[in-house]
Formats: sequence, structure tokens, C-alpha cells
Amino acid sequence: MKGLPTFVSMKEKRINYRIERGTRDDVPALLALIRELAAFERQPEAVTATEADFLRDGFGENPKFEFFMARCDGEAVGMAFFYPRYSTWKGPTLHLEDLYIVPEHRGTGLAQMLFDAVAQIAAQKEVGRMEWTVLDWNERAIRFYEKNGAHLDPEWMLGTLHPDDLEKWKSIDP
Amino acid sequence: MKGLPTFVSMKEKRINYRIERGTRDDVPALLALIRELAAFERQPEAVTATEADFLRDGFGENPKFEFFMARCDGEAVGMAFFYPRYSTWKGPTLHLEDLYIVPEHRGTGLAQMLFDAVAQIAAQKEVGRMEWTVLDWNERAIRFYEKNGAHLDPEWMLGTLHPDDLEKWKSIDP
Repeated sequence: MKGLPTFVSMKEKRINYRIERGTRDDVPALLALIRELAAFERQPEAVTATEADFLRDGFGENPKFEFFMARCDGEAVGMAFFYPRYSTWKGPTLHLEDLYIVPEHRGTGLAQMLFDAVAQIAAQKEVGRMEWTVLDWNERAIRFYEKNGAHLDPEWMLGTLHPDDLEKWKSIDP
Repeated sequence: MKGLPTFVSMKEKRINYRIERGTRDDVPALLALIRELAAFERQPEAVTATEADFLRDGFGENPKFEFFMARCDGEAVGMAFFYPRYSTWKGPTLHLEDLYIVPEHRGTGLAQMLFDAVAQIAAQKEVGRMEWTVLDWNERAIRFYEKNGAHLDPEWMLGTLHPDDLEKWKSIDP
């Protein structure tokens, strides 16, 4: 968290949203929003990360991620989760892992506020790129990113190996 | 680099490849291979990262990335470049950013040796996922990853904002 100020949107007073750096106290609400987003992305069973994981990894000297929490009258209604990455082409980059707004608060400009907060950090850090992924059927998100000047490229496929897949490499003797 | 041993393949003696942790001395050869891969991926102008970037970011107390260098009789003929990432669904993950073999050394098993070296680290660290991206027209790479049990998902599109795109966020006043 250090070195970056709490972000409070200009729009805060008008529409009563408050965007602030996520803290340990926000972790339960963060995980609830992550689970909502996974369900929206048609993978409700995919979330295996726990509150303990986020508490262990997101705070202290070398946090592995940061997040903004958006609240409306105290209630958590959105979040943006991000961390530094590294590109062999561009050097240090900023990766936006998740951006989520609960359904009742969509269309309010809140997604833009959260995206602005993250893009501002990317701009100020002068990273070589800010990047994220979006599902190809999520038309509303795609329009949102296009409106923000993003380049969207369907050419890159995501490859993954899950822990069960990785088991066989545990026994490979180098 | 600390905490992880130099990886030397069992196949080393037979086919005379040597896979070792990348060092500062390997950075010029690393960048040459990165540029070759970018050209193969039809974006030869995309590489703006410099040797100075890699020397600054890849070594010391908190390296932002690690890499394996494959050599044949001393000549750099391949590399694998990776770093930790973080998934809201899976917790800590390992991201394989680049895996490249020069054309003359393809079909030798060297790609498998490099992939094994990285997957072994992922397995030993017990990450929630190992992931990477592959271009949807790179059929040889896709077959390779499928052979390794990977899940390949074309549904996720890559979104990016480049430094020129990010300029406007520099002047947004929070």
C-alpha cells in the first residue's frame, strides 16, 4: 500500500460512492465480490482462494496484490484487484486481475471510477503497459474497455495447468 | 534466484543441452531471443524493454522475474521466462511469460526440457495454477501444450492500454 495515497473519487459526494484502498478489514467483502464475479463468469466453483490466502498475501512488506474497494453508504458494491507484472516486450506492467460492480450499481459510472483509479496508478508508475483479460461474450465489459481506448486482442489463448495437472512434475528429478 | 537450485537436465549429456538459471551475464542473449520470438509472433517492433531494464528488474533482493537459459555448446538456443502472479480464484500462481527455442534446435525435446523446468517449480511451490498465453495460430505450440495436459481457453481476450493510451490518466485528479 505504501507510496500510494488513498483514492477518493471526485464524484464521491454527488453519488455517494467512496473508493478506497482495500485493507485487511475488507477481505471478507472482497472474497464475496470475487465469488459473485466468478458466478457471473460461469465458473462459480472456480474460487478456491480463501480469506486466509488474501490476508497472508495482500499486506505487509511485499504485498502480492492491491485492491480498491467501492462502498455505497458503507456497503461493499465493487472492487478492482491488481498487481505488477512483467513483460519481456515492455518491462514492468500493471495487471488488472478483476474489476467488478454488483448488478444493482451498474450503469452509475462506478466501473469508470474504479478503472480510473487503477489506470491512474499505471500512468503514474509509467509502466510499459496496463493489461487485463475479458471474456469474449461479455459485451458490456468489452464496450466499456473500448470506450476507454483499450486494444482488445482475441488472438492470445489462455493456457493453464491446475494443481492436479502439475502433480506429475513434482516427481521429475532434475 | 535464491532457494531454487540450478536446473540441469538429465538429457544434458546425451544431447549436449545445458539448462541453467539465467544470470546477469545472460541478459544480452536473453534479449536477442526475446526479439527473435517477437518477430516470430509478427510483432518485431513490440520489444521496447532494454538490457538495462532486465538488469535492474531481474536480480537482487526482489527480482521481478526469473529465467532459464538453454545453451548448446555454449551458444544460447532457448529460454523460458517466468514470474509469480496472483489469481483472485486460485491465490498465488506461476506465469510463464515466454518459452522460445531457436528454429535450428526445435524438435529436439529442448522445449519440453524448459517447460519441465518451469512446471517443476510450479509444482514444488504448490501454486494454485500455472498459466501462459499462446497465439491461436501457433499450432505447433498449441499441440505442445496440449500434449502436456494443458487447458487452452480461447474465451479470454487480452485487453491492453499502452503508455500513449495511459497519458490521459496522468492528469486525472483523484
